[in-house]
Amino acid sequence: MKVHYECLPCIASQCQRIVEMGTEDVELRKRGIIAAARLIGQMNENSVPAVIGSRVFLGVYGAIGNDDPFGEYKELSNRLAEKTVSNLEEQNIDIKTALKLAIIGNVVDFAVGYSPEQLEEDVRRMLGEELYRDDSDELFDELSRARSLLYLTDNCGEIYFDRLFLRRVKEAYPNVEIYVAGKEGPVINDATVDDLRRAGFERMGRVISTGTRIVGVPLGEVSEEFMEVFESADVVIAKGQGNFETLSEVSDPRIFYLLRAKCRPIARELGVPQGALLCIRSR
Amino acid sequence: MKVHYECLPCIASQCQRIVEMGTEDVELRKRGIIAAARLIGQMNENSVPAVIGSRVFLGVYGAIGNDDPFGEYKELSNRLAEKTVSNLEEQNIDIKTALKLAIIGNVVDFAVGYSPEQLEEDVRRMLGEELYRDDSDELFDELSRARSLLYLTDNCGEIYFDRLFLRRVKEAYPNVEIYVAGKEGPVINDATVDDLRRAGFERMGRVISTGTRIVGVPLGEVSEEFMEVFESADVVIAKGQGNFETLSEVSDPRIFYLLRAKCRPIARELGVPQGALLCIRSR
Repeated sequence: MKVHYECLPCIASQCQRIVEMGTEDVELRKRGIIAAARLIGQMNENSVPAVIGSRVFLGVYGAIGNDDPFGEYKELSNRLAEKTVSNLEEQNIDIKTALKLAIIGNVVDFAVGYSPEQLEEDVRRMLGEELYRDDSDELFDELSRARSLLYLTDNCGEIYFDRLFLRRVKEAYPNVEIYVAGKEGPVINDATVDDLRRAGFERMGRVISTGTRIVGVPLGEVSEEFMEVFESADVVIAKGQGNFETLSEVSDPRIFYLLRAKCRPIARELGVPQGALLCIRSR
Repeated sequence: MKVHYECLPCIASQCQRIVEMGTEDVELRKRGIIAAARLIGQMNENSVPAVIGSRVFLGVYGAIGNDDPFGEYKELSNRLAEKTVSNLEEQNIDIKTALKLAIIGNVVDFAVGYSPEQLEEDVRRMLGEELYRDDSDELFDELSRARSLLYLTDNCGEIYFDRLFLRRVKEAYPNVEIYVAGKEGPVINDATVDDLRRAGFERMGRVISTGTRIVGVPLGEVSEEFMEVFESADVVIAKGQGNFETLSEVSDPRIFYLLRAKCRPIARELGVPQGALLCIRSR
């Protein structure tokens, strides 16, 4: 997916958030924003939002001298989500509900002051929503024949919902070898390989790095090791907007996207209403 | 005043608004935003927000092929403000209240759906607020000795409040020669010389152009004719943020700024609370 017109103000607003989270020093914030402006100048009509966005954000990180401005936010997200998911795990959740929860996990904004009670209530409310597009029967059908699954994670917090879903996948398809991919290092609130290890994903399969801090799976930037896993996987589950943005240019029926169309560009690109919950097979 | 860190996301959001007001064509909106991104790339730590902002906006105008995306909005602002001010003019308003109204006129957002009744109520409410800094006694003292006044306007709509104030100035200081400056052509919702003429400012003095479409008074960009008036004026009244941003680097006690500190950067620069109503002499 290439940039839409709304991507510039969105990237610029995220830069403001990054410098505000990353430093109290107003002069340093300004230095970060000037670095952002220069990098934004490289945007062209073929830029992929996740890629140009990540380059800009990482440039800001360098300029303000903070390699992980979302560090605290991510910790909080993980703690809150873990608690919510552990309550859910006590219930008898089927694999289809677990898949829906994995999409819902992509939605939750773990803002400061968000109570676990509030989060649980929001999750319950969203469970009542229908998937706007639902190719999950095809996904489960593919998994029943697959030898390997590559699961591309998205954000911190959300990964605990992914873990719940992957447990159900492992129970239902015990012969499928599972690979779970995270980012090589911090970028916004994306889950890194370290986050995945701390969340215990190694008990479910092999935790691998995409080999880059760029959001999504930017082909040409990911590591060779990752590409080998990506190319040989029978099924790929790609969570969230960043993975969709970077992979949507290739038509590859092994890929299933699980996401909520949070922003207008993604909704426009997919031809779905903004806010739609989606399980879509790439065609 | 040089850019603060919040200026980048603000300029980017305004670009979104410009392309949305300027064209229904999503591809053209994107072309406008890509042009904006390239121009934003020229921002550096010494950029003046009004100047870099104007350059970006005018670049977007060119890319989307619409030379005045705010055209309708400005018409609406002028009609609404004219009606409100004509009701106010029936009352016996003293020059100090008229000065305050000129500042208040800088605040009003003439958004679609804003009724004249609502506007009048908002104006009345704001008239109850105190000026946070008030150098108006010095201004009136200077005017009593001055031979000439240069009045730098800001936005459409607001100019009708300026007209009311200038009428009081003309009554109180009949010997002062008044120059009223507007922009050479459309840029966001700024008043052009044509807007000033249509609003009847020629009955109060000489309407002149700054000679540029860049917001404010960007020295080096304004016309020679304008510079002559600017340099020879005994008193300069500069309305709004754009005029402040471009003139604040020079210390010139002939200049009085009338504005509301609408955004955080301006408030930070002036050391006043955001939202403060201000009549400040340059020192």
